[in-house]
Amino acid sequence: MRPVSGESKFILQYCSMFTLQATDPAGQARAGLLSTDHGVIETPIFMPVGTTGAVKAVHHEELESVVHAQIILGNSYHLFIRPGMKIMAEAGGLHQFIQWQKPILTDSGGYQVFSLAEKRKIREEGATFQSHVDGSKHLFTPENVMDIQRVLGSDIMMAFDECTPYPCEKPAALLSMQLTHRWLARCVKRFGETEPLYGHRQSLFPIVQGSIYPDLRKQSAEYVAGFDLDGHAIGGLSVGEPAEHMYAMTELVCRILPAAKPRYLMGVGTPWNILECIALGIDMFDCVMPTRNGRNGMLFTRHGVINIKNKKWENDFSPIDEELDCPVSRRFSKAYLKHLLQAHEMVGAQIASLHNLTFYVWLTGEARRHILAGDFTTWKPLMVKELMRRL
Amino acid sequence: MRPVSGESKFILQYCSMFTLQATDPAGQARAGLLSTDHGVIETPIFMPVGTTGAVKAVHHEELESVVHAQIILGNSYHLFIRPGMKIMAEAGGLHQFIQWQKPILTDSGGYQVFSLAEKRKIREEGATFQSHVDGSKHLFTPENVMDIQRVLGSDIMMAFDECTPYPCEKPAALLSMQLTHRWLARCVKRFGETEPLYGHRQSLFPIVQGSIYPDLRKQSAEYVAGFDLDGHAIGGLSVGEPAEHMYAMTELVCRILPAAKPRYLMGVGTPWNILECIALGIDMFDCVMPTRNGRNGMLFTRHGVINIKNKKWENDFSPIDEELDCPVSRRFSKAYLKHLLQAHEMVGAQIASLHNLTFYVWLTGEARRHILAGDFTTWKPLMVKELMRRL
Repeated sequence: MRPVSGESKFILQYCSMFTLQATDPAGQARAGLLSTDHGVIETPIFMPVGTTGAVKAVHHEELESVVHAQIILGNSYHLFIRPGMKIMAEAGGLHQFIQWQKPILTDSGGYQVFSLAEKRKIREEGATFQSHVDGSKHLFTPENVMDIQRVLGSDIMMAFDECTPYPCEKPAALLSMQLTHRWLARCVKRFGETEPLYGHRQSLFPIVQGSIYPDLRKQSAEYVAGFDLDGHAIGGLSVGEPAEHMYAMTELVCRILPAAKPRYLMGVGTPWNILECIALGIDMFDCVMPTRNGRNGMLFTRHGVINIKNKKWENDFSPIDEELDCPVSRRFSKAYLKHLLQAHEMVGAQIASLHNLTFYVWLTGEARRHILAGDFTTWKPLMVKELMRRL
Repeated sequence: MRPVSGESKFILQYCSMFTLQATDPAGQARAGLLSTDHGVIETPIFMPVGTTGAVKAVHHEELESVVHAQIILGNSYHLFIRPGMKIMAEAGGLHQFIQWQKPILTDSGGYQVFSLAEKRKIREEGATFQSHVDGSKHLFTPENVMDIQRVLGSDIMMAFDECTPYPCEKPAALLSMQLTHRWLARCVKRFGETEPLYGHRQSLFPIVQGSIYPDLRKQSAEYVAGFDLDGHAIGGLSVGEPAEHMYAMTELVCRILPAAKPRYLMGVGTPWNILECIALGIDMFDCVMPTRNGRNGMLFTRHGVINIKNKKWENDFSPIDEELDCPVSRRFSKAYLKHLLQAHEMVGAQIASLHNLTFYVWLTGEARRHILAGDFTTWKPLMVKELMRRL
């Protein structure tokens, strides 16, 4: 499973899963190769979110041929609730069930238990909750969440954690972080006691918590790094805190997490958030923003943000985005897309989602190209300024 | 604009728009070529419905590359209401606005005024109604509906008619038909007094009405045929009447309408309805069934109908339809599609709609191949039997 790289001169370090190819000479941005049994992922990478086994409004054919997605996410909570683990086991795992043969990362469901489920209660053992679909009662523990992800067969499994809301008082953030840490130890134990079910390798990523408190974040980053797992995730950010906090915590944590392993910043964010966090040393991103905001008419382009619902676009017959390598963005006009979204046509959501996802994946690829070329640090601030414009 | 045909030995008759290539030796089924300035359509044909300028859940790229749609429909009522004729004129017509360069047929909006709009009133002059979107008051007349379709620039414009509901007492059906006839005369006059706006030819199709009364249908067919327009449509069927009535009226009308011109049966229907009506001499069909029923989990295949919501499919991991030349039907399983529709994932509606539309267009193409091969009459009853099976 050693990754194949055509850019071997950039290879600096190698661990079992991740090949660090280049680090920006003037900063922390990195380019790498993340190797899984379902393929090699070029980082930095944006990962489309396929919560229930499908990315909203964009089917796999387009994810492959237009978006050029290299990895997608699934969610343990949603898939456990529906279709359920019996079906998933009979299908032979998530890759088979959804017919997606590239890598998959599954979230542990911790975030969803706390954000979606009803009557949730957190105990040392785990979290009890009622399904948001049918009210049925369930218990998630670090152990059964590992078992669920074994059945899902994701290439990257996430530890079961408690995601602190924002704001969160420090004593509560400390207690929550400590619980997440105890749960992580149990996750690692169960992960080590179990085997993949479908013949391909699975990695477990632990999650750094600690809200916006530097000492907690430091403590958490050091604790999770101690398990020597294949990669690390940062959770509990992009939950409503000012961007400065997000950047500060990310920077602090990235300085602690080992450079030889991939770093995944969960749930982030806007295109400029992503470039700023790449600059801090993040390799992997996921966010519902490109699809959710797309459905609401917000389009991201390399020249700024379009709110397609603005009246000014109603007779703008120029393409949505002529520069992006996305057939629908080049074919259809802003006026047409505005019309479709206002008429509540599904095709409007499809076009907007396809555009935004293609843009996000292009953007992380472009960041990678600049890191490999050695000019990321000069390119990034100019690009961020462009990206943040309101068109 | 003379159509080019590779099958010239089949050419029997020629009129300005339609080339009748073959008639089944044992029946009335026909194969033809319908020539427009946006391309030649091979008949019999199913036309996907793009009411507001978009086919529900299937964008144009897929309509072209997967469905192989040769012509789509737009609707004057919906497009008049939103985005409105000012935008449409600025765009340079519907083809430009929606970036669809193949043929377009637009319905006149008569059916929608009566089925969707509020507070509608029919007078000799036309129909007054309030928009179902914003309650604004409007008047549709035969004249302004012609003007609207000139601005839309559709290749085939439909006359403004009153569509009788089912059931409809004979005196009311007679009065309604007579009004439709007077409106038709006004449509033809206005059509003749106006010119296409965008340099391509537009045809006007009149609509036969008369509910389920043979003498009214006969009278209507003879009346509309007298205008010597490019083609003819049959309206007021598939509105709730038993299939036997639909077939009887279609057969009666087809025997009157000239064979040299295309015949369009509006709003029909199931796959078996379509084959039965092809057998009676119909060339063109449209229906929302493949998309609407698809969204609700009904899938049409050459071996019968699948109700994907049935529990029996929940662990059926076989492809939706391995035989159809549609990537999503071959890639995704019945179990996955059932899951997506039950989880209300848009991708479920997209896959089901794409499958059904591809199937409908394949089916009319298959009928055409059998007509050209001369074995339609032996093939049709066997196929109908298969199509109607419940899987």
